[in-house]
Amino acid sequence: MVETRLIDGKAFAEGMRARLKEDVAAFVRETGVTPGLAVVLVGEDPASAVYVRNKGKQTVEAGMASLEHKLPADTPQDEVLALVRALNADSSVHGILVQLPLPASIDAQAVLATIDPAKDVDGFHVVNAGRLAVGLDALVPCTPLGCVMLLKDVLGSLAGLEAVVVGRSNIVGKPLAQLLLREDATVTIAHSRTRDLPGVCRRADILIGAVGRPEMIRGDWIKPGATVIDVGINRVAGVDGKARLVGDVAFDEAQGIAGAITPVPGGVGPMTIACLLANTLTAAKRQVGAD
Amino acid sequence: MVETRLIDGKAFAEGMRARLKEDVAAFVRETGVTPGLAVVLVGEDPASAVYVRNKGKQTVEAGMASLEHKLPADTPQDEVLALVRALNADSSVHGILVQLPLPASIDAQAVLATIDPAKDVDGFHVVNAGRLAVGLDALVPCTPLGCVMLLKDVLGSLAGLEAVVVGRSNIVGKPLAQLLLREDATVTIAHSRTRDLPGVCRRADILIGAVGRPEMIRGDWIKPGATVIDVGINRVAGVDGKARLVGDVAFDEAQGIAGAITPVPGGVGPMTIACLLANTLTAAKRQVGAD
Repeated sequence: MVETRLIDGKAFAEGMRARLKEDVAAFVRETGVTPGLAVVLVGEDPASAVYVRNKGKQTVEAGMASLEHKLPADTPQDEVLALVRALNADSSVHGILVQLPLPASIDAQAVLATIDPAKDVDGFHVVNAGRLAVGLDALVPCTPLGCVMLLKDVLGSLAGLEAVVVGRSNIVGKPLAQLLLREDATVTIAHSRTRDLPGVCRRADILIGAVGRPEMIRGDWIKPGATVIDVGINRVAGVDGKARLVGDVAFDEAQGIAGAITPVPGGVGPMTIACLLANTLTAAKRQVGAD
Repeated sequence: MVETRLIDGKAFAEGMRARLKEDVAAFVRETGVTPGLAVVLVGEDPASAVYVRNKGKQTVEAGMASLEHKLPADTPQDEVLALVRALNADSSVHGILVQLPLPASIDAQAVLATIDPAKDVDGFHVVNAGRLAVGLDALVPCTPLGCVMLLKDVLGSLAGLEAVVVGRSNIVGKPLAQLLLREDATVTIAHSRTRDLPGVCRRADILIGAVGRPEMIRGDWIKPGATVIDVGINRVAGVDGKARLVGDVAFDEAQGIAGAITPVPGGVGPMTIACLLANTLTAAKRQVGAD
């Protein structure tokens, strides 16, 4: 029975944003340029509206310019593409984020492909996925980047550790595997077709849940002492009938087994926006040639 | 003790090229277009010259046009880039292959980045690496593609099998991991920093050696019955003092343990050119809109 350490992503993200604010101020002093993040929101999805508001607030707090473009749900795809192209051409905009999901009438892949890869702070453009895959400088998706930052904070070097990523999405699982490989971990990608998923998970020094299934990863799937990163944010009905958030890992069962674990909420979640801001500063530096 | 089956890549590649020849003929009949593969060779590397000659010969045998551009070793990088751009613009050229290694005076990454991704039949351009990573249609590197074809021929479905790829190069290991994941295998990427590499290999239903170290993977690293694909082609001194080719796997030791194994030579090697020809036809189909 080990004492399981809580990985406080909220506190880490706050510290990161404070350091970032200083870096932004230095960048503005040196270049006279204020990094600008443009966020495009199409439609009225309430969760998306909350995310966009939080992103805008934290962007401004970090000393950067936030530009929000809100379009009605029935905006034709051509108009969304035209807006993205205008933002590509706008030198005051260094990062462009199109909030997903887009309305079903719009081809999300076409919109993402239109974003200038140099301004693609979500890291979803194929050019950035390719640059990450071949080991070139890339803008890296924010959530996987946040996971690796937390892991390095807890573990120091990840070299030679067995990492198991459960889930193979383009947004988390696959780029996270690339980042862990870059850190010299031995990386396994497991998924819905994996045989003996509990056994595969039990091999992991670093176990990542990124499937979006509430508490799927049980306590006895965790190797004693492993570091567990829970990317899932699932809304479930609590015993009192109220909705509550749980991760992909059965958090209570992991206590006394995992060496360290991120809570949900307050673990990976806060890292995502902090990494988005970091990506925006990185993009601005590269665009003005100050990287 | 199992009877170890030999995976005859030479015979498989011959059958593949015969089918491809029919497909090329049908494509020429339907479109009036003859697929063209341009190969650029800079300098006098003898091994490269042999490869280029073989590629040219097999391209013509498949009914496609082969265009060889041989440049002296001291050709300035600008001239190589200008040639690539001319080939990009040439509608009779559907595939472009720049033979590696390039002379040290030339930035290989810059040359590869200049190739039109639609004509990048080696699949090394970041756009193709990215398209593969996110699951879009891509031109896929030839050697990994050949490995997966052999595996599917031996095993049928790869879904749920444990695959271990030893080696994480951009040319073989990393794209192969993506392809195996696309086939629903549980994929582990191991490498020089992996702890207990023998133990990791022993987990594999599918074991791939792609490190370029002669006979590094020993017989007792192989799970009984596993399918072993040996990508290594290493030149070593034989007992008689003559050079001989060996793979990354100790082939003799694997006998009676592996369920099936590719020999070196005659395993993966012949598949690479066959897949290059297949990629050239795929590229031609997409370029004329016949895909």
